[in-house]
Amino acid sequence: MISIIKVGGAIVENPESLSVLLHEFVSLKGPKVLVHGGGRSATKIAAQLGIESKMVGGRRITDTEMLHVVTMVYGGLVNKNIVAALQAQGLNALGLTGADMNIIRAHRRPITPEGIDFGFVGDIDSADGKLLLQLLEMGITPVVAPLAHDGQGHLLNVNADTIAQTVATALSPLTDVSLTYCFELPGVMKNPEDTNSLIPFINKMTYQQLLADGTISGGMIPKMENAFKAINEGVKKVIITQHSHLEGGTTIAE
Amino acid sequence: MISIIKVGGAIVENPESLSVLLHEFVSLKGPKVLVHGGGRSATKIAAQLGIESKMVGGRRITDTEMLHVVTMVYGGLVNKNIVAALQAQGLNALGLTGADMNIIRAHRRPITPEGIDFGFVGDIDSADGKLLLQLLEMGITPVVAPLAHDGQGHLLNVNADTIAQTVATALSPLTDVSLTYCFELPGVMKNPEDTNSLIPFINKMTYQQLLADGTISGGMIPKMENAFKAINEGVKKVIITQHSHLEGGTTIAE
Repeated sequence: MISIIKVGGAIVENPESLSVLLHEFVSLKGPKVLVHGGGRSATKIAAQLGIESKMVGGRRITDTEMLHVVTMVYGGLVNKNIVAALQAQGLNALGLTGADMNIIRAHRRPITPEGIDFGFVGDIDSADGKLLLQLLEMGITPVVAPLAHDGQGHLLNVNADTIAQTVATALSPLTDVSLTYCFELPGVMKNPEDTNSLIPFINKMTYQQLLADGTISGGMIPKMENAFKAINEGVKKVIITQHSHLEGGTTIAE
Repeated sequence: MISIIKVGGAIVENPESLSVLLHEFVSLKGPKVLVHGGGRSATKIAAQLGIESKMVGGRRITDTEMLHVVTMVYGGLVNKNIVAALQAQGLNALGLTGADMNIIRAHRRPITPEGIDFGFVGDIDSADGKLLLQLLEMGITPVVAPLAHDGQGHLLNVNADTIAQTVATALSPLTDVSLTYCFELPGVMKNPEDTNSLIPFINKMTYQQLLADGTISGGMIPKMENAFKAINEGVKKVIITQHSHLEGGTTIAE
């Protein structure tokens, strides 16, 4: 079983939570891939450079200047510091964007019907699962930044959740894959106020019950829909957990 | 023969000269590695962030803030844009710092006897030639940024010429290697004013003559000394040429 772990900007940009996450990640048995975000650092560096961050529906408008910022921050600052930290713990990490070894190809998102031009934001076309598997078999741990490329010389800004799901589904035809999303809570909770109310396992049938009785609602619904989408595309299980308990949390499976 | 091509910041930071260089690089036959600088971009981005660049003897004082800048610029902006541009020309490039796959290890330079603390500047300990050769045999073209790591979680800023020489000498025991330095002139010239006065070949004996008659002087002397050092360490030939003529220039060999 190959583990794909996705961790967002809030965790990787705080040295303490990053250290906890990396320790958990190193302890995880078996081949693994880390996919990271970095949006908060990008916003901060952009502001320092006098570049305003414009978000539409949670996605960053990525003009040429902002593409330079996310290339620096995601592909350089965040990615390479994680790689160096993992090397220090004896894990042979390799930092990648989608352009490296042509791992993840995307196309520039067309202007939306509402007339919004996201700029250099990519929608993914394909990922090279065979090459990722070959790296894992060489004992290498890929650390993937949320950047793809269009094959015409342009890097493209891609949502890190989407990158994680793409990597997981590209590997799924070749081997068993689990996909873990780090979350601010211990997992899916019966009652978000009660840390002892973790739901350890959800399948398609119990999901319908949890939806019907209102236990799962609001922002959890798209997360669950994405999880089942990954499972429909061949991922064996999706885990939603805290960065400090990569082996706990809620497991979602068929 | 594996070709290691080193190209400095002045060329990679100008879109036109970069495009000429990459076209030449793609056309070059056989397995190859590109090592790039990026100092001018680092100085520019640092200035935009309100960070002053302090140089001593041509080396950048690299405190924590400057380390963030060079990690962003060398490891992210410059490296990933070269990788994406090479992919667009059908070359399967992989961007690397020394931390990636533990390729280049270094230690932090001690404070000099004159009391100068270069900060996170690295002096190289070793490079993994076997792994680089394995990548080349997989059809991958490494693109190496001038950053190493200390194995304790720190990236270190290293001179790109030194990185190129280290990569060349690490590969030399395994296979024949040539090392090319891109230069502002067509090569070593009898008369720098006369573009037709290229010296096509220099060996140890002719070098002594060129030194004695004053043809080689000033800033060319350390370049030639470094070239012969690489040759003494097993590199078959060193080429000094323009970025627009990677297969021309002056060849230095035993």
